[in-house]
Amino acid sequence: MDIKQYMQTVGRQARAASRAMAAADTNVKNAALLGIAAAIRRDAAKLIAANALDLAAARAAGLEPALVDRLTLNEKTVAGMAEGLEQIATLADPVGEITDLKYRPSGIQVGKMRVPLGVIGIIYESRPNVTADAAGLCLKSGNAAILRGGSEAIHSNQAIAACVKEGLAKAGLPDTAVQVIETTDRAAVAELITMREFVDVIVPRGGKGLIERLINESKVPMIKHLHGNCHVYLDDAADRAKTVKIVENAKTQRYGTCNTTESLLVARSRAAELLPDIGRMLATHSVEMRCCAEAMAILKAASVDAALLKEATEADWYEEFLAPIIAIKVVDGLDNAIEHINTHGSQHTDAIVTENYTRARRFLREVDSASVMVNASTRFADGFEYGLGAEIGISTDKIHARGPVGLEGLTSQKYVVLGDGHIRG
Amino acid sequence: MDIKQYMQTVGRQARAASRAMAAADTNVKNAALLGIAAAIRRDAAKLIAANALDLAAARAAGLEPALVDRLTLNEKTVAGMAEGLEQIATLADPVGEITDLKYRPSGIQVGKMRVPLGVIGIIYESRPNVTADAAGLCLKSGNAAILRGGSEAIHSNQAIAACVKEGLAKAGLPDTAVQVIETTDRAAVAELITMREFVDVIVPRGGKGLIERLINESKVPMIKHLHGNCHVYLDDAADRAKTVKIVENAKTQRYGTCNTTESLLVARSRAAELLPDIGRMLATHSVEMRCCAEAMAILKAASVDAALLKEATEADWYEEFLAPIIAIKVVDGLDNAIEHINTHGSQHTDAIVTENYTRARRFLREVDSASVMVNASTRFADGFEYGLGAEIGISTDKIHARGPVGLEGLTSQKYVVLGDGHIRG
Repeated sequence: MDIKQYMQTVGRQARAASRAMAAADTNVKNAALLGIAAAIRRDAAKLIAANALDLAAARAAGLEPALVDRLTLNEKTVAGMAEGLEQIATLADPVGEITDLKYRPSGIQVGKMRVPLGVIGIIYESRPNVTADAAGLCLKSGNAAILRGGSEAIHSNQAIAACVKEGLAKAGLPDTAVQVIETTDRAAVAELITMREFVDVIVPRGGKGLIERLINESKVPMIKHLHGNCHVYLDDAADRAKTVKIVENAKTQRYGTCNTTESLLVARSRAAELLPDIGRMLATHSVEMRCCAEAMAILKAASVDAALLKEATEADWYEEFLAPIIAIKVVDGLDNAIEHINTHGSQHTDAIVTENYTRARRFLREVDSASVMVNASTRFADGFEYGLGAEIGISTDKIHARGPVGLEGLTSQKYVVLGDGHIRG
Repeated sequence: MDIKQYMQTVGRQARAASRAMAAADTNVKNAALLGIAAAIRRDAAKLIAANALDLAAARAAGLEPALVDRLTLNEKTVAGMAEGLEQIATLADPVGEITDLKYRPSGIQVGKMRVPLGVIGIIYESRPNVTADAAGLCLKSGNAAILRGGSEAIHSNQAIAACVKEGLAKAGLPDTAVQVIETTDRAAVAELITMREFVDVIVPRGGKGLIERLINESKVPMIKHLHGNCHVYLDDAADRAKTVKIVENAKTQRYGTCNTTESLLVARSRAAELLPDIGRMLATHSVEMRCCAEAMAILKAASVDAALLKEATEADWYEEFLAPIIAIKVVDGLDNAIEHINTHGSQHTDAIVTENYTRARRFLREVDSASVMVNASTRFADGFEYGLGAEIGISTDKIHARGPVGLEGLTSQKYVVLGDGHIRG
């Protein structure tokens, strides 16, 4: 197989399909989503059988249990994929919405129309359910998609792809509107991220290693986040009960998600009062605490399990632990906290706990992250929690979408101008 | 001078200044704009003297008269720069605006806050007035800017830069918020477009050659357009009087602008009726017509000056002539016109002339360009005409801003979340 030629064909077909998708009626797109869901439900046994081939290969190759777990499809996860698609069908169609249509002094009316981005390339790792999710979101937002899943999920992904094709075709849409790459050759990714004539945006989903490589090699704009080093800052005016509750949820609800808090900052004026309770709470979850000297002294004096206390290194302030580990630092106050977050953070999600109106306002404005929060857990940074209905990923970039990216993030706005024979003077 | 080290210093200073700019009050930013304008008015003679050095060098180097013309500063153009800045001071500040703040079922409030992009790198050619314009727009939108003008304008740009620094400092803002590169070494551009840690977006302004080179080499996202191959399509239901009026304005008002029409498409059912008048009108402006065979036959039969009629080549359908030349093609109808525009166009600005409601709606939705128009001249695609107040450039990209980019295009939106001790369930 000539990979370059194959990818060029995929790209050309996607570009052609994107025109039909952009013009497709909402009810036709919804029919395709429901058709794909129905095919997935009907083919559950087939999907699980295809998945068994991937699982056998993964085990033979000695893949880590966590990866095998993510790769696994069963009746419940297959039903979950179908439900996800049915839910996307219920979301409002963002395409075609016209806003801000206003008369100008020249007499023309100028407004903005929301339109699909065109062709979206999605590169992801082992979870096969991303194939159905991503296909559904791209379809509903009027885009064509090129999906490239992990090589370890190739049989599962191709089986899901067959359902997607069937749903598209039955609804009268081009079955090339969603193409799942059929080769596990890495050269296909290299082509995908450089075919600027056929691909409008790349959404990578995966570990930091994958994303870093793609950032360096991509010639196509990306909607992405590299990692999540989220902070909770306990301000001088923090409500004591809220501090323990929010830190517990933000750190310990799930350790492996990008919106989990990795660093805790505490205003010096409250450190001796607040840290002991928090340290004891973290110890009940066996969370390792990497502390600055001041925090260490306070936690030691409070008899927090010494086995869980470590001296923090400079690198810890930058780290996404994805584990029961948290970095803890005592800071002078708000200015120092904002400076620390903007310097060491990942511009993902950061929260302040405070009852002080002025400092809450300043934190919201001056912390340069995709999500900034007052008195809430960083774990809320999520498309469903924000009301987007679903999310294709999270962006920590500055242009286009920031934070959780839903259907609207897969669109942009063009200008529409209505005249009656108007010419420019 | 070590260019890499110099640019790293510029980048680091810009990143630091961008924090102060993001937090700056509207009245402080306006004071800086007015201060820069005042310094420019006061230093008019100095600016013109600095410009004389550039002009002498340009003439000695044998620069084309059109380039020398663009490079020239005089009392009128200097006053124009100051007026431009004063006008930017009157525009609404986009920064900090919170929209869509809504309660979610979990109890949190989620909304979006408009924030600056951070550090904007602007790369432009000979016009020195871009230095003042770009500085003003970046400043008002709360961004820090790194400006790299053409080497032929180095003295003029440095003189303007002194006024910018003075205005910033007097208003209490860091004078590194706008830095004009002091070297003409091309290596500085190579650094600017690859310093991802210090530069959030690049806005290139210049000819196709410059933009193409930057697209290939940039590691930083860009807001840009490569060229403008704008179309007017005369539909089966076009109003005859409007066709001549719009084509005349769109093609002949100015030949060198990116929103000038370069291709004319005519529905076959109306070609024999509409083309003779249009051909004669274009002939009075000495516009060369590059025609498909059908259009050629009609125009010849109508006795349009044969010296102005040429056979079109395939390349002409893609061409931005920037000259008194237009490509003319007879098409089957709307489908054919949309297909032609989406294939050969530059996704800049395209217009339909029609009285037909359904085809007008389809053209607006299905033509994939930054600006789509009904019964209006493509010349309207402009920040002032659209009510943006000013524009930093035009984007034909799909993500972020499309079309004329004003203050809002130099910002994005982050999420703000307000809770009262809320945690995720």
